[in-house]
Amino acid sequence: MKILLSDTSYLDPEPIRAAGHDVVLFTESQPVPEEHRDAEAMVLWGGGGSGSADVLKAMPGYLTRLRWVQTLAAGPDNVLAAGFPDSVAITSGRHFHDRTVAEHAAALALACVRSLPRALEAQSDHVWDSELGGAHPLDAPDRLTTLLNARALVWGFGAIGQQTASVLTALGAQVRGVARSAGTRAGYEVIAVDDVESALPETDLLVMILPSTPETTGALSAERLALLPRRSVVVNVGRGATVDQDALEAALRSGAISAAGLDVTAPEPLPADSTLWDAPNLVITPHSAGGRAVGAVDRIIKNAALIEATPEGEVPTGLEALVTR
Amino acid sequence: MKILLSDTSYLDPEPIRAAGHDVVLFTESQPVPEEHRDAEAMVLWGGGGSGSADVLKAMPGYLTRLRWVQTLAAGPDNVLAAGFPDSVAITSGRHFHDRTVAEHAAALALACVRSLPRALEAQSDHVWDSELGGAHPLDAPDRLTTLLNARALVWGFGAIGQQTASVLTALGAQVRGVARSAGTRAGYEVIAVDDVESALPETDLLVMILPSTPETTGALSAERLALLPRRSVVVNVGRGATVDQDALEAALRSGAISAAGLDVTAPEPLPADSTLWDAPNLVITPHSAGGRAVGAVDRIIKNAALIEATPEGEVPTGLEALVTR
Repeated sequence: MKILLSDTSYLDPEPIRAAGHDVVLFTESQPVPEEHRDAEAMVLWGGGGSGSADVLKAMPGYLTRLRWVQTLAAGPDNVLAAGFPDSVAITSGRHFHDRTVAEHAAALALACVRSLPRALEAQSDHVWDSELGGAHPLDAPDRLTTLLNARALVWGFGAIGQQTASVLTALGAQVRGVARSAGTRAGYEVIAVDDVESALPETDLLVMILPSTPETTGALSAERLALLPRRSVVVNVGRGATVDQDALEAALRSGAISAAGLDVTAPEPLPADSTLWDAPNLVITPHSAGGRAVGAVDRIIKNAALIEATPEGEVPTGLEALVTR
Repeated sequence: MKILLSDTSYLDPEPIRAAGHDVVLFTESQPVPEEHRDAEAMVLWGGGGSGSADVLKAMPGYLTRLRWVQTLAAGPDNVLAAGFPDSVAITSGRHFHDRTVAEHAAALALACVRSLPRALEAQSDHVWDSELGGAHPLDAPDRLTTLLNARALVWGFGAIGQQTASVLTALGAQVRGVARSAGTRAGYEVIAVDDVESALPETDLLVMILPSTPETTGALSAERLALLPRRSVVVNVGRGATVDQDALEAALRSGAISAAGLDVTAPEPLPADSTLWDAPNLVITPHSAGGRAVGAVDRIIKNAALIEATPEGEVPTGLEALVTR
C-alpha cells in the first residue's frame, strides 16, 4: 500500500516499509505531488501550520484512491472538516501524546515549585542566589516549595489527566481529578465540574488539561482563580481559551497565586506586545507539550494491515482509534 | 525536656510542645543564650552558614546538660567534629531529604529535556519560539526530547538514588543504578562503579548523587564524560567535586553532551567570574535540592520520648538514625 507520511512526523519509515508498504514522505503544507496522488493512505499531523487547512480541504478532490487517514495529532478536527468521503477511514492520534503531555505538565509544575525561572535569571547574572538554597518551609502560606504532599487537582481527567495524576502521585502529591461527572477513575477521586468551587480553596497545584469547547471557554474564571490559596500554582497544558488569561496575569502580579506554567495561551502565538510575557513567577512554553507521536509506527502498521485485508470501499472493523463520523 | 530548635528549621514546634517538651527557638550562627544553656536537646541543621562550625565547636563547653543532638542535614559531619562527649546521642537527618532531592533531580532533568532555559530566554524576549513547539523527534542523535523510554543511569544508589529511580520510572525512563558493588537493589539493576564505562555509551540521562569523599572526587572524569552519547543529559544533585567541572563545561560548549542541570558546583558559591555560568544548555540551581526536612517533627518526638525514658548518662537503644561513633 502506498502511504504518504508527513515529513515532520519524525517517524522511522523503515518498520513500515518492512511491513511491505511503499512509504513516501510529503510536506503537509503543500499539495501532494501529482505522482503520489494514487496513495491509499496518508499519515499527517493534520493540524496547525499556516495554510494547511486549505491544503487539506483540496485533498479529497484529487486523492481519489485514498482509503485511510491516520492523524498524529490527538484531535482529528481539521481532517474531519476537510470533507473526505465516508469510505475513507480516519484514525486519530489518541493516546500518542498522553505521556509526553503529562511529562510537560510535571516539568512546568516542578519548574514552579523549584523556582527555576528565578534560578535561571540569577544564573544569567552570575549570581549564586542563597535564598533559593538553604532551608525552606514545607508549608508556607505564600509559596509551594515541593510537590511532596501537595494537594493537586487535575481538571480534565481523560487519558492525559490520568497519566498526569500518576506522575504527580509518584512525586508525592495527593491527587484528585475534575470531570463532568463525579466518581472514582483510575483509582482517583474525581469531582464533578459543578463542585469545583469547593475543591479550589484546598488546592496547591491546579493542572488544567481541558480541550477547547464552547463549554470549557474561561472555565478557570476570575471568580474561580480567586478561590485558590496564595501558595497555589496553576499549570495549563490543555487549551489557552479554558483559562481567563487576564485574570491569571492579575493573580500572578498581585501575588494571589504563587506561580504558573503555561504551555498554551490565547491567542497562539502569544503576541510580542502581550503583557503576559513579563508576569512574575510565570513559565511560558510555546505549545510544546506534545509533538512527539509515541506509538504511532505500531498503530500505522496495525491499521494498514487491516485496511489491506478489507475490500476497497469498505472500512474494516477493529481499526485502532477509528473516528466515528 | 528543654529542646533548642533552630529558627531556620521551618518546623512546626506545636506538635513537639504538645508532646510535653519546652521548645526554645535559637539561631544556629550565634552562641546559645545563657538562659537556655540548660537545654537537654538540640535540633539544628548543623551545616553551612559562615561561622557556624566555630559556634558548634564551642557548644560542648557550655551545654553541660545536653543529652541529644538531632541534625536536620542528612550528614552530621560538623556536629561530629564539634567534640560532644559520647554520652550525647547524635541522630542524623537521614531520609529527611530523599524525596525532595529526588524531586529536584527530576525537575532539572525535565527542564533539560523540555528546553526550559531556552523557553525562558525566548519568554524574556517576548518571542514565541516555534521550534520548541511543533513536532519533535523521539530519537534524535543530538538531543533528548523526553524522559519517556530514555536510558537513565543513577550514579549513587542509596536511598536518594532509589527514590530518584522511582520517579524517573514513573516518567517512563528505563533506569539502572551505579554503586560500589553490582546487584539488584529496590528492583533495579545496579552496575559496579568499576564497570561504569561500559554503561555510559548507552546512557541518555546520567544523574549523579554521590557524596564527596576522596574516592568520589572527579568520578565523572573527562574520560568518562567522553563516553556519553551526544544526546545525553547530565544532572548532579550530589556534590560538585564528584564531577570534573571543566570537562563538563567543555562538553556542553562543544555539544559533546546536549544539556546539564547542576544543583551543586565546586566551589560553592560558584564565583561570579566562573565561565560555567554561561555554558549553553545548562541550568544551575544554588544547592537548593534539599533544605526541606520532611518527617523531622515525627523523628524529634519519637527520639525525645526515648531519651526521656532513659536514665541520664545513658544513650537509649532504638533511637531513629542514631550516628554510631
